[in-house]
Amino acid sequence: MERLTGRDPSLLRRINSTVVLRALRAEARGAAPTLTDLVRATELSRPTVEGVVEQLIGAGLVEEAGEEPGGEGGGARRGRPARRFRFRAEAGHLLGIEIGPHRIAAVLADLTGRFTGTVSHEVDEKATADERLERARGTVAELLRRTEVQRSNLRAVGVGTPGIVEADGTVRLGTALPGWTGLPLGERLRRSFRCPVLVENDANAGVLAERWKGAATGSQDVVMVLVGLSPGAGSLIGGRLHRGFGGAAGEIGALHLLGREATPEHLLSTTDEPLHPLDEAAVARVFSLARQGDARARAAMDRFMQRLVHDVAALVLALDPELVVVGGWASGLDDVLEPLRQELERYCLRPPRVALSVLGEAAVATGALRLALDHVENELGLGEQQVSQ
Amino acid sequence: MERLTGRDPSLLRRINSTVVLRALRAEARGAAPTLTDLVRATELSRPTVEGVVEQLIGAGLVEEAGEEPGGEGGGARRGRPARRFRFRAEAGHLLGIEIGPHRIAAVLADLTGRFTGTVSHEVDEKATADERLERARGTVAELLRRTEVQRSNLRAVGVGTPGIVEADGTVRLGTALPGWTGLPLGERLRRSFRCPVLVENDANAGVLAERWKGAATGSQDVVMVLVGLSPGAGSLIGGRLHRGFGGAAGEIGALHLLGREATPEHLLSTTDEPLHPLDEAAVARVFSLARQGDARARAAMDRFMQRLVHDVAALVLALDPELVVVGGWASGLDDVLEPLRQELERYCLRPPRVALSVLGEAAVATGALRLALDHVENELGLGEQQVSQ
Repeated sequence: MERLTGRDPSLLRRINSTVVLRALRAEARGAAPTLTDLVRATELSRPTVEGVVEQLIGAGLVEEAGEEPGGEGGGARRGRPARRFRFRAEAGHLLGIEIGPHRIAAVLADLTGRFTGTVSHEVDEKATADERLERARGTVAELLRRTEVQRSNLRAVGVGTPGIVEADGTVRLGTALPGWTGLPLGERLRRSFRCPVLVENDANAGVLAERWKGAATGSQDVVMVLVGLSPGAGSLIGGRLHRGFGGAAGEIGALHLLGREATPEHLLSTTDEPLHPLDEAAVARVFSLARQGDARARAAMDRFMQRLVHDVAALVLALDPELVVVGGWASGLDDVLEPLRQELERYCLRPPRVALSVLGEAAVATGALRLALDHVENELGLGEQQVSQ
Repeated sequence: MERLTGRDPSLLRRINSTVVLRALRAEARGAAPTLTDLVRATELSRPTVEGVVEQLIGAGLVEEAGEEPGGEGGGARRGRPARRFRFRAEAGHLLGIEIGPHRIAAVLADLTGRFTGTVSHEVDEKATADERLERARGTVAELLRRTEVQRSNLRAVGVGTPGIVEADGTVRLGTALPGWTGLPLGERLRRSFRCPVLVENDANAGVLAERWKGAATGSQDVVMVLVGLSPGAGSLIGGRLHRGFGGAAGEIGALHLLGREATPEHLLSTTDEPLHPLDEAAVARVFSLARQGDARARAAMDRFMQRLVHDVAALVLALDPELVVVGGWASGLDDVLEPLRQELERYCLRPPRVALSVLGEAAVATGALRLALDHVENELGLGEQQVSQ
């Protein structure tokens, strides 16, 4: 690593602190490291490492691990035992929340991103914004109670929800949930937490989750399509979330309006009435009927597929991703994958890989958690886009 | 600027050289700077600046400008005249070439990007790849002859052409030109030049041109749609060209296949036969007939508009750009702009600005030239994404 010299000693201290923290987190997989281990891992001087470690202990991020016999530096068998240090992953917690049309889900994790608990509840699709927020608060309270984590221990909260979300967490446009358009969601939720609250579009959260621990690990150019009432997509371009100029990227659901095509409720209906409610169970029933050979269900599924392929093709042609991840429903999507793949092969100049969401219903909350974790890692200087070693 | 210390003196020299070159180019707008001017502008030491300037003179990039009376450093009126220096923009030239279905165009510029000449010729849409390449070589030879620039003075050549283009300049897929798919275009052209040859998709080149000196100056999130035989688009995301994982981003032309819609030749036909050739003149005739109230021409234009709006809407929904630039034909597009704007207002959650290409037919060659200029500026360390001051 190039060392920076110059006018900003606090920058230098922060870099050193980052380097030591990283080494501590990396070494945490094995035995707790000694000062000598840290000096070796960081290539910093021993006094520098000592100073940084004391600072981190003061900040509550590091503590002395249990002592082991045996001195440092070779064969000093009867010497003073070496001090060992560990990163205190439990020094803070992160919360990821999904606020969806039918469901509220919350996930809790420690500072390394290890999950420590999850709670989810159904919510009426007709619930008002206030009712939905109350439901979200209740879900979080239940999760904190069950995991015995203090609210003051939360370092950041991520939220995933349908709609176009402004940087400050206001929902600019959210037709999927009653009362959502114009709702200052970030501001409302911030009243319940003393830590930063980050609000993100649900499909954007989803694609972050699939890249973190789902179908898209190792991929940098990914489109995640959330199949649903109004299909939406979240995209990674070169590993970074592509939100678009006004945060509306991937809101492909409006495309069918152009051809005056029917809504999913009509597409998936096996009667003359729209399918209602259009939820996972209803869709699963239609798909199951289709598998059993029911002609109307078969036709409904074909219509639905044609629409989905068209929307996904538009995204693929515009963005040319490496991988398309299909999610949004926990089941019923298996039947979608192969036809989608075949149609994309026919129409796309360079068809991408197509995969099912691995995280399923957990994708949005997990992605919201990842956002919170990114925020805290950046604060601590541990973010990937910060100092490179 | 932070100074780097450490093991790589050549890096330091390169940075200093870049800083001095930038100052010379910036000052070139006023009087040729003296050493004192450069020391002030760069904050480097006088011996360092002197050393760098001598190096740059050796490399042919800088020369001593005509002397002016009056010494440096205040009132030494009868002192030795101050040496002044200028960036030799003529030390190298850049070439931008469009190889299209109906036209070959070439643009020449000096090292500051100032145009010094342009030549264009029609080419038969049925010409073989060899014939088309020969036509391109002839066009370039004519341009160099007319401008009296030596071929050996070329520093880089950019080429814009329809299709999916690999990094090495091979056309992976190019259905618009006969024999284009699989053509090692970069390799073939490199035989004619001793400098680097960079091949890019035509719409990608177009969007770079419009950002450089067209409708998109100052915009970082832009989609440029080339209306034509098979509509294609080039996108800037955060100011950078978005090529996609496999270089196919924006190849939206295949989308109409999904709905089994007609080709532009059918959409724009006012008879039962496809419109042939589908070139600017033919389209202008249809648009002109429509303006005069011809019912079939009106219907043809409506069909064409619907298709165009659909393709552009797909791009806009996927990418959410700040601005859509419509180009590809030099005329006839005025009639397209307002309906496109209105339809996008209806269907897009956050409609982008829509503007007509400013560069028109010159867009692709100009963008190809910009690519060549970027390449040389990066080599000289003058690129925007390099050292930041």
